[in-house]
Amino acid sequence: MKKLDIRKAFTYLEEGPIILVGVNDGKKNNLMAISWTMVLDFSGRFALCTGDWNESFKTLMKTKECTLNIPPVSLLEKVVKIGDCDGSKVDKFKEFKLTALKGKKTSAPLVKECLASFECRVEKYLSEESILILQVVAAYENEEIQDRREIHAIGDGTFVIDGEKRDLRSLMKDKIPEGL
Amino acid sequence: MKKLDIRKAFTYLEEGPIILVGVNDGKKNNLMAISWTMVLDFSGRFALCTGDWNESFKTLMKTKECTLNIPPVSLLEKVVKIGDCDGSKVDKFKEFKLTALKGKKTSAPLVKECLASFECRVEKYLSEESILILQVVAAYENEEIQDRREIHAIGDGTFVIDGEKRDLRSLMKDKIPEGL
Repeated sequence: MKKLDIRKAFTYLEEGPIILVGVNDGKKNNLMAISWTMVLDFSGRFALCTGDWNESFKTLMKTKECTLNIPPVSLLEKVVKIGDCDGSKVDKFKEFKLTALKGKKTSAPLVKECLASFECRVEKYLSEESILILQVVAAYENEEIQDRREIHAIGDGTFVIDGEKRDLRSLMKDKIPEGL
Repeated sequence: MKKLDIRKAFTYLEEGPIILVGVNDGKKNNLMAISWTMVLDFSGRFALCTGDWNESFKTLMKTKECTLNIPPVSLLEKVVKIGDCDGSKVDKFKEFKLTALKGKKTSAPLVKECLASFECRVEKYLSEESILILQVVAAYENEEIQDRREIHAIGDGTFVIDGEKRDLRSLMKDKIPEGL
């Protein structure tokens, strides 16, 4: 995977895709599928809504690190199955034939088959709201994946895939962060 | 607009569309375009990332209420222009030929031309993280709009429109909230 400017990481999250969150508890890797995410600024700061209903949450809070991985449409079935099985019983990387790559800043696994992957550190957890605040510390893109459409969960078991793109840069020049 | 079960509101937000946030300061309506949103649970509780860089934020904090409106693809240009002009100088409903409907629980305007609209009360504002916590108190759908594709902002002035839908309910039956 190729290095990506951290300031561009938000362009993979702003459109609201379902993502895979990777953790490592020192013994094994785990993955969870999450749709409840939010961009917080242009520096690679993100919020996730998660809590102890997610198996990976304990590891996340203990290690204070994770990866966010953006799956392409070709992984849709695997993403759903990852969200529907228990990482304490299954090695999800093995079960779903995904490749865990080592990051440079954390011990959490990057998913090679994803469009982009971000190594993150936990900044804080707002327990009353179940909101986790993350800061990206390294970002990568897998440019070899041809079909770059992302997956969006509706929440009722159906999903919508990225369709046509529209360029309206000319209407909002003053709102686009520098370098994008 | 037809009443919608509040427990279904999240199915319009989970996929990460750009939305229009409506406020009324007692004298006039205003609108802002926001992409930084997150579902918090299945009861119609949502987070927005906003702050005093948004003109409507003052009104939001004063009135403690707003609407969230989900624009269809046909409103794309208007949504971008709404995000790029200043509500203190322009009456955005008039300028962009949108219809403000009165809600039942708040004074904030519903946008008739949107797929769905939610009246919300401000639960709290986490100023350090710029996160606003909202609770939906009434929800509506405009079923007359034929093209129901939503708009997703990438953040660089380009947008992606909803494409094909996939039904994977059979793979995740146990994760789908009752009634959906």
